Amino acid sequence: MPFKDECGVFGIYAQPEAARQTYLGLYALQHRGQEAAGICSRNGRELILHKGLGYVADVFTEAVLDRLEGDAAIGHTRYSTTGGNVASAAHPFLVTGRFGQVALCHNGNLTNTERLRNRLIQEGQLFTGPSDSEVILALINRASAHSLEGAVAEALRQVEGAFSLLVLGEDSFIAVRDPHGFRPLSLAKLDHSWVFASESTAFDLVNADYEREVKPGEMVVIDAHGLRSSFPVPEVSPRPCVFEHVYFSRPDSFVFSRSVMATRREMGSCLARRHPVEADLVVPVPDSGVQAALGYAETSGIPFNFGLVRNHYVGRTFIEPKQSIRSFGVKVKLNPCRELLRGQRVVLVDDSIVRGTTSRKIVQMVKQAGAAEVHLRISSPPTTHSCFYGIDTPTRDQLIAAQKSIPEICEYIGADSLGFLTLEDLHHAMGDQGGQGFCYACFDGKYPVPPETAKA
Amino acid sequence: MPFKDECGVFGIYAQPEAARQTYLGLYALQHRGQEAAGICSRNGRELILHKGLGYVADVFTEAVLDRLEGDAAIGHTRYSTTGGNVASAAHPFLVTGRFGQVALCHNGNLTNTERLRNRLIQEGQLFTGPSDSEVILALINRASAHSLEGAVAEALRQVEGAFSLLVLGEDSFIAVRDPHGFRPLSLAKLDHSWVFASESTAFDLVNADYEREVKPGEMVVIDAHGLRSSFPVPEVSPRPCVFEHVYFSRPDSFVFSRSVMATRREMGSCLARRHPVEADLVVPVPDSGVQAALGYAETSGIPFNFGLVRNHYVGRTFIEPKQSIRSFGVKVKLNPCRELLRGQRVVLVDDSIVRGTTSRKIVQMVKQAGAAEVHLRISSPPTTHSCFYGIDTPTRDQLIAAQKSIPEICEYIGADSLGFLTLEDLHHAMGDQGGQGFCYACFDGKYPVPPETAKA
Amino acid sequence: MPFKDECGVFGIYAQPEAARQTYLGLYALQHRGQEAAGICSRNGRELILHKGLGYVADVFTEAVLDRLEGDAAIGHTRYSTTGGNVASAAHPFLVTGRFGQVALCHNGNLTNTERLRNRLIQEGQLFTGPSDSEVILALINRASAHSLEGAVAEALRQVEGAFSLLVLGEDSFIAVRDPHGFRPLSLAKLDHSWVFASESTAFDLVNADYEREVKPGEMVVIDAHGLRSSFPVPEVSPRPCVFEHVYFSRPDSFVFSRSVMATRREMGSCLARRHPVEADLVVPVPDSGVQAALGYAETSGIPFNFGLVRNHYVGRTFIEPKQSIRSFGVKVKLNPCRELLRGQRVVLVDDSIVRGTTSRKIVQMVKQAGAAEVHLRISSPPTTHSCFYGIDTPTRDQLIAAQKSIPEICEYIGADSLGFLTLEDLHHAMGDQGGQGFCYACFDGKYPVPPETAKA
Amino acid sequence: MPFKDECGVFGIYAQPEAARQTYLGLYALQHRGQEAAGICSRNGRELILHKGLGYVADVFTEAVLDRLEGDAAIGHTRYSTTGGNVASAAHPFLVTGRFGQVALCHNGNLTNTERLRNRLIQEGQLFTGPSDSEVILALINRASAHSLEGAVAEALRQVEGAFSLLVLGEDSFIAVRDPHGFRPLSLAKLDHSWVFASESTAFDLVNADYEREVKPGEMVVIDAHGLRSSFPVPEVSPRPCVFEHVYFSRPDSFVFSRSVMATRREMGSCLARRHPVEADLVVPVPDSGVQAALGYAETSGIPFNFGLVRNHYVGRTFIEPKQSIRSFGVKVKLNPCRELLRGQRVVLVDDSIVRGTTSRKIVQMVKQAGAAEVHLRISSPPTTHSCFYGIDTPTRDQLIAAQKSIPEICEYIGADSLGFLTLEDLHHAMGDQGGQGFCYACFDGKYPVPPETAKA
Repeated sequence: MPFKDECGVFGIYAQPEAARQTYLGLYALQHRGQEAAGICSRNGRELILHKGLGYVADVFTEAVLDRLEGDAAIGHTRYSTTGGNVASAAHPFLVTGRFGQVALCHNGNLTNTERLRNRLIQEGQLFTGPSDSEVILALINRASAHSLEGAVAEALRQVEGAFSLLVLGEDSFIAVRDPHGFRPLSLAKLDHSWVFASESTAFDLVNADYEREVKPGEMVVIDAHGLRSSFPVPEVSPRPCVFEHVYFSRPDSFVFSRSVMATRREMGSCLARRHPVEADLVVPVPDSGVQAALGYAETSGIPFNFGLVRNHYVGRTFIEPKQSIRSFGVKVKLNPCRELLRGQRVVLVDDSIVRGTTSRKIVQMVKQAGAAEVHLRISSPPTTHSCFYGIDTPTRDQLIAAQKSIPEICEYIGADSLGFLTLEDLHHAMGDQGGQGFCYACFDGKYPVPPETAKA
Repeated sequence: MPFKDECGVFGIYAQPEAARQTYLGLYALQHRGQEAAGICSRNGRELILHKGLGYVADVFTEAVLDRLEGDAAIGHTRYSTTGGNVASAAHPFLVTGRFGQVALCHNGNLTNTERLRNRLIQEGQLFTGPSDSEVILALINRASAHSLEGAVAEALRQVEGAFSLLVLGEDSFIAVRDPHGFRPLSLAKLDHSWVFASESTAFDLVNADYEREVKPGEMVVIDAHGLRSSFPVPEVSPRPCVFEHVYFSRPDSFVFSRSVMATRREMGSCLARRHPVEADLVVPVPDSGVQAALGYAETSGIPFNFGLVRNHYVGRTFIEPKQSIRSFGVKVKLNPCRELLRGQRVVLVDDSIVRGTTSRKIVQMVKQAGAAEVHLRISSPPTTHSCFYGIDTPTRDQLIAAQKSIPEICEYIGADSLGFLTLEDLHHAMGDQGGQGFCYACFDGKYPVPPETAKA
Repeated sequence: MPFKDECGVFGIYAQPEAARQTYLGLYALQHRGQEAAGICSRNGRELILHKGLGYVADVFTEAVLDRLEGDAAIGHTRYSTTGGNVASAAHPFLVTGRFGQVALCHNGNLTNTERLRNRLIQEGQLFTGPSDSEVILALINRASAHSLEGAVAEALRQVEGAFSLLVLGEDSFIAVRDPHGFRPLSLAKLDHSWVFASESTAFDLVNADYEREVKPGEMVVIDAHGLRSSFPVPEVSPRPCVFEHVYFSRPDSFVFSRSVMATRREMGSCLARRHPVEADLVVPVPDSGVQAALGYAETSGIPFNFGLVRNHYVGRTFIEPKQSIRSFGVKVKLNPCRELLRGQRVVLVDDSIVRGTTSRKIVQMVKQAGAAEVHLRISSPPTTHSCFYGIDTPTRDQLIAAQKSIPEICEYIGADSLGFLTLEDLHHAMGDQGGQGFCYACFDGKYPVPPETAKA
Repeated sequence: MPFKDECGVFGIYAQPEAARQTYLGLYALQHRGQEAAGICSRNGRELILHKGLGYVADVFTEAVLDRLEGDAAIGHTRYSTTGGNVASAAHPFLVTGRFGQVALCHNGNLTNTERLRNRLIQEGQLFTGPSDSEVILALINRASAHSLEGAVAEALRQVEGAFSLLVLGEDSFIAVRDPHGFRPLSLAKLDHSWVFASESTAFDLVNADYEREVKPGEMVVIDAHGLRSSFPVPEVSPRPCVFEHVYFSRPDSFVFSRSVMATRREMGSCLARRHPVEADLVVPVPDSGVQAALGYAETSGIPFNFGLVRNHYVGRTFIEPKQSIRSFGVKVKLNPCRELLRGQRVVLVDDSIVRGTTSRKIVQMVKQAGAAEVHLRISSPPTTHSCFYGIDTPTRDQLIAAQKSIPEICEYIGADSLGFLTLEDLHHAMGDQGGQGFCYACFDGKYPVPPETAKA
């Protein structure tokens, strides 16, 4: 598989200062990707692009934003990927072809990239890097349709997998979500203009009013004639990614028409019912475990508090000491509050366990801080399968839950007890009777779209 | 008044990689000052200094830390100050004089700086900037004593106000706290060496074991003969700064031998008893209001949740949009969770009100997010007086509680009700029967040390 | 016309530290382009690219050079161009297509770019920017040949204009010069490996031994089977660019098998014979006028000296004073030596006059420094036509010699007399009997290849 | 000896945009120091300082220059020094003391620094670094005089050695040159204001008209009452530094009331008479050997040309290849022109020989480029003694001429012949009958002021 990306997208049409609004939107989506950021704007004569490595606030200066003129723009924040020429992987991508200048950014991951790329290369296409975006742009450019809108629709019929796309053309703006709706994308109004974002929290910062999700399989086109919607690809059963609610989205966001915060709290409640324990204190692993911990505390009646305090100043270039410090990697982010933990039976709540190494360090740290017992509660089922739809997960051989039983994991981690949600609990917390409404593949291995290359 | 500084200090003696340990310690104290950072180390031949503007992680690189050789070091993080030559105000200060090289950093604010400076200038002293540190170093240098230790003791008898000092000499390391003990300073052991820090959280990161506070008026000297303690200045009634517990310190720290987290929770409990209200939800203004809100919720039985979500990616150079956005300054840091707030009667808990402008914006934001009622609860009494002991507060004419009554403040802020702690509540929360154990001057105007220049 | 570029290229094959050698080569070619630099290396598994804006020494760090592994590399320095997304115009270009990864960099300018681009776009090709390089890469990729070598040959038959290309493939290295040989490209040996560079001075720094020019129309291919040469395009009369000798190349270089320094000195000698004058001092406009001035002095017997001293610290971001300073733009680079000029009759020697504004300021400056007379001598004919083969010249309406007669130019510039070389003199200085051996289009308007779009 | 510094100073009084003018002046003096730069301006309320490491163009931005308000300013460029805390060694120094704020920058080196520093430390003074400037500022501050002017005069009577000082006070501007006049300092008029600079070339860029040297021992004071001059120290025989003319100053400068260019050419003429040789070509080691080479060529009748071409893009951070390249350190700056040198008998002219290692590499390089013979001619006598007056020279044991005879040096360097100027030739070239008018200590060891600590 080439690249995995968890990213955030934001777009705005028919607004003065479109690039500055996009800058704000990306800033609100910064948690979706801290490696790179980019904006492409349209000023009526040409499309203008700026992208670079780093935080949104570092990539864009006043001078750069002044250069990004125009009343339409799309932008992107990108998650950390390892190796390769990272700069060339930043979005948006801007090309000139049959439809003049076209810019594209996307959140997601195609599952048939390799096949499409190989075919396109045979047909004479060149690629500057491994990004899915170049594949999609090539498909658009080679479509038989005579309009950008038609060409995007044609391209959609060829790609498989997860994608929420924003396309900025010389005369139109197009937003698309894959038919399964794996990745989120919503729509809001700001005055008389339209705004699109991965999460609703981005609308709040620019004072836009949330309207609705872009629906799975929907293509929204905005141009001089206004906004219109169509569904160019055959309908399938939607499968939005449950992990957006488990971990990835901001708690104050509305994602897949559901409140992330409320869902997480409900996960915590389920967890309290599923794995009750005699304890003195419910402690979240901040920040992602906070809402589930509140739900656990509320349902169990056990007091909640921040027994682990997070240091938010951690930057990308922190220097480690040469002599080893116990659990340094975890301690630099989290500090246990001894006063609170000493002698207590602690319910520690986290959102998931991937490799298990971090959980193990945290449990050790809480114990060294004096906790009498540590009962680890995870607000999702065991992560047994890799994601092929845009969430960066390791291969199965590195997923502890794919290799060990729950008692073995508990022993490895050193907790006094360990409890996960069941799949049914998760369905329930998601309000998904029967468990057909979301993609749970990382928990159950049922992939809605077969991945091109299975990981070991 | 020249400069106010809320800062963090860290020092270590007889440890390999002293500068790297100090780097970690400063990183843990980053919340005490984000404007500048500096470290001075001693390698047996000379003292080596590096300081600069920005976060700890930006000021120090691997190459710089490699240059800061030696087994003793002191370091400092500095809070934002306006105007002036900020670079020259970074600590530590390193000078060569009668005692060879001497480096000093301090947290606090002298109240007789101007008088001392003028006298020293008359005596022929030069100053490179307005820092108190240069005044202290000049007094040390001009003392009649023949040892650095004696000279520091002599200097201490001349300075007034608030100071926690670390002094690194060619042969000794000295830690001092002013006789009132306004600012915190604690002592820990790491293997066979000693570590000093403003807050205990810095000890945790370097795996040092907390021993005790440096006592008000105490001078701790460490050299080849080991550690010794003395009290060179006449004893006075200690008055540690209550604001460290109200707002400034990290919740996981032990400050003035008290848990900050526990104190804050107790403040919230008091507040719930003092100002009960019928409500549906207790919402903290994060991060400083969290523990008081938890205390309020626990005592009142009203559910607690994060109705305001904080964006931790805010940097120093965020670009504002040209067109105004309602409450932008607050929104860029805090986003209301509409789902949670809609239709709710909200108890909003913050630590203090200074000018009232930010509180007003937050209350508006919560109401616009749909809250039915907003009851603002402040976990300290009205701030009616400026601080002269190292906390950056505006002059009285800018303190809303010095200008308006509580009902007037409530009206200005637009809350449905407003409740502060009383002074007696605060005494109680601090475990301070009679209210003589801490400095409450910002709340009651009773200044333990008369300020040189009273603010309006 | 899209982009004009005077650039430098360097390539090396079968040498350890290929990227570091290329870095040195580019450094020696820095005078050919200061805006951007890039290197692509090949490590046996993949091609690795790094490019950026700025001087060679700024774009590459130790860490970057370490990442550019492998024993083959090509590099490029790029001249200043105005507007547009400059970053995307930096070379080399690296693509993945039918022949796997292919990198290309070139010096020159195609004259049929627009036509080719339009055709390729119709055929489904996408372009990320306006560079000629992408056009060439697309032609290579769409060739019917089955080898990269064959495809390059096919592409060459379609492009017109000026180009010296270096192509790095997964298994071979190709160097090409257009059939007219407009732009230089030479070949040298370093131990058992081959080195290519725009000018021979780059060979000197890496200790390579100059072998010969790549011939006009020649394609040199190096791979596991060694080096082979072919001439894939129909032969035409070679027309190397005379301006490389007039101005662009370094004096210590061997260009088009001729010594630049010797040619320039001969130009000066011709000038002395063509436009003798009674004078006291021959003064060059440094650095480009130095050799011609030496030739003028030698032939005329008038003493030579540096009456204008150049400040070599001029960077890209020099801040101009707000209040205007006479002739500031020129003075910041050149300072007259009053002592030398005072009362003297000066022969001022420069290489060419483009708009005339700079010459006017320099003449004024020399007069204000006390010169009694200033006789301007130009070591080339009047520049009356724009270049379409890679030298950045303004449009004809901005070329003073296309708009004014020589006496009018002399008056505008304020010189006491003005003399140019004649075309015949230039032919002579270039050893080009009959004037058919080089391209003199900027002087005589005889374009060997018709430009696609004529400038006004 | 603490620090040696060859530096440039510039000051301006009663001019709008004083800091911007100073920026230009420093830019013109950039050759006198590339390590650090600083400017202090006075805006009527306070003195404002900015200094930093790097080139003038790097240290100052528009924003910084805007902050340096006021109509008076002094500035400084600083030469490379090794080790130590370089940032703290940048000038100007700004202090607050008895005379309010006082800024100082200087070019030169005191010879009794250690003695003065020790005395001042005994008297209670503190120093932040090893700079002479702090010693002078302390002496000024401790003077018994009641005016800054009087105090500067008093301080001058205590310091020994070489110094050209600019002092900016709250109400006055003072320029001073030491009684021997070791280091240059001149005075010019710009409209109605006064400008001071180390070399006259700085006046040219700001359009100021050269007036005269500040005389050895002179103190020039400018304030609201205008300009006045005095000689506060006993007169001694002036001894300006001959090395300013041999090497350090720019050729277009007027230094010590003499044209640098004319002096250097005369040195070359003397050299031609003293050491004639049968040869084909005179080649300078650029840039410092150019004028002497022109003089040699003129007198000898042997043609002059640039057989070595200098690359002016060499920055501070050039990366060396890992595998060694013959004579790399020299080649990166100088490239031989083979075409010119091949088979020629070359007279190579340089200004001086210090350690001999660079000369040796250059001679080798010229021979490898094909020269038949290389006759090295040095336009100064053998450098046998270290400088204690501000020129950075190695200790005697590293000076090849202090360790070897001329034939031995010739052999080490590998030249076919080697000729130096004699001391008498140098006296003659400087127009100094009897050799009492300048300091020749580096050539004859006759130190006008005894150095505090003799180097080996």
